[in-house]
Amino acid sequence: MTVLDQTGKRRLVPSATALPDPFAVRDEVDAILADFLAKRARAAPGPEMTPLFTTLSGLLDGGKRLRAHLCVAGWYAGGGCGDRDLILRVAASLELFHAFALIHDDVMDGSDLRRGRPTAHHALAAAYVADGGPPHRATAHGQAAGLLLGDLVLTLSDDLIHTGPGAEAMWRIRPLLETMRSQLVYGQYLDLLSTGRPCDDVEAALRIVRYKTASYTVEWPLRIGAALVGAGPGVHSACSEFAIPLGEAFQLRDDLLGVFGDPAKTGKPVDDDIREGKATVLMALALQPASATDRQLLREAVGNPDLTGEDFGRVRDVIERSGAHRQVETMITARRHAALTVLDQAPFPFLAAEALREIAGTATVRQS
Amino acid sequence: MTVLDQTGKRRLVPSATALPDPFAVRDEVDAILADFLAKRARAAPGPEMTPLFTTLSGLLDGGKRLRAHLCVAGWYAGGGCGDRDLILRVAASLELFHAFALIHDDVMDGSDLRRGRPTAHHALAAAYVADGGPPHRATAHGQAAGLLLGDLVLTLSDDLIHTGPGAEAMWRIRPLLETMRSQLVYGQYLDLLSTGRPCDDVEAALRIVRYKTASYTVEWPLRIGAALVGAGPGVHSACSEFAIPLGEAFQLRDDLLGVFGDPAKTGKPVDDDIREGKATVLMALALQPASATDRQLLREAVGNPDLTGEDFGRVRDVIERSGAHRQVETMITARRHAALTVLDQAPFPFLAAEALREIAGTATVRQS
Repeated sequence: MTVLDQTGKRRLVPSATALPDPFAVRDEVDAILADFLAKRARAAPGPEMTPLFTTLSGLLDGGKRLRAHLCVAGWYAGGGCGDRDLILRVAASLELFHAFALIHDDVMDGSDLRRGRPTAHHALAAAYVADGGPPHRATAHGQAAGLLLGDLVLTLSDDLIHTGPGAEAMWRIRPLLETMRSQLVYGQYLDLLSTGRPCDDVEAALRIVRYKTASYTVEWPLRIGAALVGAGPGVHSACSEFAIPLGEAFQLRDDLLGVFGDPAKTGKPVDDDIREGKATVLMALALQPASATDRQLLREAVGNPDLTGEDFGRVRDVIERSGAHRQVETMITARRHAALTVLDQAPFPFLAAEALREIAGTATVRQS
Repeated sequence: MTVLDQTGKRRLVPSATALPDPFAVRDEVDAILADFLAKRARAAPGPEMTPLFTTLSGLLDGGKRLRAHLCVAGWYAGGGCGDRDLILRVAASLELFHAFALIHDDVMDGSDLRRGRPTAHHALAAAYVADGGPPHRATAHGQAAGLLLGDLVLTLSDDLIHTGPGAEAMWRIRPLLETMRSQLVYGQYLDLLSTGRPCDDVEAALRIVRYKTASYTVEWPLRIGAALVGAGPGVHSACSEFAIPLGEAFQLRDDLLGVFGDPAKTGKPVDDDIREGKATVLMALALQPASATDRQLLREAVGNPDLTGEDFGRVRDVIERSGAHRQVETMITARRHAALTVLDQAPFPFLAAEALREIAGTATVRQS
């Protein structure tokens, strides 16, 4: 099989014999994305569409390909073997689905940076001005164009997935795709309803995590992979049992990185979560023991677009003092442990379980 | 039996019992939508999701169901007969696709009214405040929630279409669906690039019309209907030949209603198009003969969010004086005529052609 390498060159990859390396997904997925998007860009009505595709490529340059890895791992977990071109196309389409979610999320939150670059709506605003668009319209243009790019990428994700499995297999994974897509929207809507209104209800914050992140990041990619091999209910329930705690741990790590992370590694400003007013588990835990003064301080800071560096420093102090930081670390460890314990019992082939063990580590210990 | 049609030609007409009334689509489509959305609302994670479904139902209360009619007519045009439940589900899903397009369009344009009601983002902002959300966050919440609702409706449209035809038929119409979806986004993006920058290039304005409206309003609904019966290339090319001029005429009528329509009938403010800065064919034709003063006046008014009633009156005077209003009426007539001429030769069953003739009339002569 020939793939494009990171520098754009074609290279020959030995075809799989028995069970190919489940860890080496990234290059193959990226080659599929590059090829698919180049075709679609060529088929677009004119050069005016270039900023849409350039912005998308820029966004796709970064990212961990976690969903793609999980999808391929799910396929192995379900007993998949041999030619994995089809599963890689499905995995690549999940990365486009994730890109759609990021683009719209950044438009909604008015975020400036993603993966160390200007967010899609900022990139599109810049392209507009560079192409002679009046600067006073740039912001509004960028937001609208970001919305359109998200729409395009959602449909591209659906188009790409249909280049993989045939009609019958697609029919089989359809209910999973449908659930994944609607759960993401429901989670984002729950998140939105709580934005700027932090409360000390940890369960409410965890519910948002489950819908907004855990399901489309871990559970459905894994189960879609398994469903493509026609895995039975035992595999599916083991996938869910592994995925739900891991997905929660993933988002809890994100919450910590969103306040204590290193912007050079996360690729986004460290005060984004506070400024955007996210009602995270971390915030709920920080509010619980807080004094009236500290509660007031947190409530005023969360969702304040004019937050200063000093304000943010004070917020971080309150969180540290509350012990919430440590509690979230404990929650992450417990959830990673729960996920790994499932692997010990799961009816997965050995190498698939090993791949999932590796993913569980990187998803929860990461710094970006 | 054989009858003489309107042009005096002999046509074979299948018996009336075999070909149910193609005009009575609305009630059936609405029943499918109500049933499908009620099921999805029940399956949603909690009462917090209610505003999403209520807002969507409100939007669906209005509308002409033009795309649904065309889809069913396309099915008849391709020789469809008998049980039409499946085609009605596809037709209903196209109405959801249209609803998605309207919701995101209104977010992008910041429109206030649609089909005589507050636009989706305004309705969601109001629901947020009614539910105790802080009023100072209402506008930002509404815009973000409108974006999410649009995303949800796009995926619901895709889910509903899959409850109709089976895997094989879905596979057949897939390329058409893909083209429809991406052409809409491309058209909206072209529209966005020209927003607030009106120019006198009629061809450029018509190109936007073709992508933004004509294709997803007429051509693809009709051809998706025909494709579901497995119609051959003759039927498909007749569908396109009929649809392209009709779709253009539809949008040209919209452009006229957008400046000269009766808000009580169109359900939106009469100055929306000017305020939002749409670079329409009407505007291009008005700019062509305009004096330097009039050009200046038009350029300043188009896309001015603070447009006064007086400003708008002056814009309308310039357009009237330019003869553009009359020219657009002439363009509509020519396109309707071209579409009807195609029907005289098209390999469609008589009643299907009659239904399309009827639709061509209502789509181009309408007041709303």
